[in-house]
Amino acid sequence: MTYNRRVQYYETDKMQCTHHSNYIRFMEEARLDFLDKIGYGYARMEKEGLISPVISVDVQYKKPTTFDDIICIEVALKSMTLAKMEFGYTMTCRGEVVCLAKSEHCFLNKDNRPVSIKKVNPALFDLLCSKIE
Amino acid sequence: MTYNRRVQYYETDKMQCTHHSNYIRFMEEARLDFLDKIGYGYARMEKEGLISPVISVDVQYKKPTTFDDIICIEVALKSMTLAKMEFGYTMTCRGEVVCLAKSEHCFLNKDNRPVSIKKVNPALFDLLCSKIE
Amino acid sequence: MTYNRRVQYYETDKMQCTHHSNYIRFMEEARLDFLDKIGYGYARMEKEGLISPVISVDVQYKKPTTFDDIICIEVALKSMTLAKMEFGYTMTCRGEVVCLAKSEHCFLNKDNRPVSIKKVNPALFDLLCSKIE
Amino acid sequence: MTYNRRVQYYETDKMQCTHHSNYIRFMEEARLDFLDKIGYGYARMEKEGLISPVISVDVQYKKPTTFDDIICIEVALKSMTLAKMEFGYTMTCRGEVVCLAKSEHCFLNKDNRPVSIKKVNPALFDLLCSKIE
Repeated sequence: MTYNRRVQYYETDKMQCTHHSNYIRFMEEARLDFLDKIGYGYARMEKEGLISPVISVDVQYKKPTTFDDIICIEVALKSMTLAKMEFGYTMTCRGEVVCLAKSEHCFLNKDNRPVSIKKVNPALFDLLCSKIE
Repeated sequence: MTYNRRVQYYETDKMQCTHHSNYIRFMEEARLDFLDKIGYGYARMEKEGLISPVISVDVQYKKPTTFDDIICIEVALKSMTLAKMEFGYTMTCRGEVVCLAKSEHCFLNKDNRPVSIKKVNPALFDLLCSKIE
Repeated sequence: MTYNRRVQYYETDKMQCTHHSNYIRFMEEARLDFLDKIGYGYARMEKEGLISPVISVDVQYKKPTTFDDIICIEVALKSMTLAKMEFGYTMTCRGEVVCLAKSEHCFLNKDNRPVSIKKVNPALFDLLCSKIE
Repeated sequence: MTYNRRVQYYETDKMQCTHHSNYIRFMEEARLDFLDKIGYGYARMEKEGLISPVISVDVQYKKPTTFDDIICIEVALKSMTLAKMEFGYTMTCRGEVVCLAKSEHCFLNKDNRPVSIKKVNPALFDLLCSKIE
């Protein structure tokens, strides 16, 4: 799934490039866009009592980007278990890879206790499993 | 009351200056530090069911600052009513005024309904009134 | 001119609303989108040696917004002089006004010295003047 | 080397925890504080024409933190080569590990070309090597 994101002025830094912390935010945007596109947005997940915090990120910065650049983010669900899921991200700009990343997410209920997504929301579990690449 | 704040690298932008949006965040930091210093921190206010959202900000940017600069923020409570309070901020760097600002805040309960701070928390109301400059 | 902006998860805070500092960033996005749409993007202005820092913002927060809300930002150029310009912003969400704001901007050259925009870039000055509402 | 960082209100999110992207910023703060404390601040490095962008981050989120928490960040230089350096971070809050992280950084000159730090700034290279843990 593709998510295009224009770099904002306030996301650049003194090096005149996109500050590296913002890619973590772009990953979140692309991931939530992915959930929207498969038909189960994160706002709905949260309303139904399932939250999915980030438990790890791993980011390789390959080339700088800057204000006004459009970063094309390919996001894919890489794996699913009852306890966690993993996303992969390939970001390109003008045809060149600028960033490669992964993130892992667990599943908690509203009291912040780990739950099995398959038990709590089997429809969402099946939907997600069908989207693994 | 004085709050000193070092500008971080990630707060600068492509113009090689502190991005203007960050001063709004510095104001919040200085205001919450003010509440800590008068002995009634915002975390405690929130735990007791009183929240105080920002209803306006007015910021005049006088001179740029950049990474590693220490901004000295003089924050003062300017006025109090039952329904809102106003803070004033004078920010200097190396003896020069860099930013002048004001912010207004209302009082809500946990259901986001306006409340009279005097009714809900008279001790805090009296404490704040005694700090008006 | 209208700019629609979805609120991101990382822009919410502990009050479960959009943090007030982010509206300053939405204003920047809407303003730069305005410049793009009139055919003179900010990246081009900068490349040609004209920068236009924010010298003031004045923001009235009317209603909270939160994650996944789409904020509709009406941005208009309100006034132009040789030395500065002023933008006005009306932000609505689901038909209700959530935020009203203004910002002022000066004109500097690459050495951070004030310049007359009419002298330095008369075509841009005329273009901007024709867009005042 | 230890760097203590209080979590700000604007760094929390709708989950009422510190948003995960901010830990990347805390890492930068701790790393720049490390350089200050060993007597070679990043502002000086930059002025002398050596920049050191982040080329990777790897972050494991262990426990949530929230507004007003003080995160104690232990930062250490883990390895140095002529082309890059690696930092490790152990973040604790109330005695519990909340986050473990690593970051890698390369060395560029003002034209964004890779340089050997040993060639360009042998004194800084030796100083950094003496701090490896």
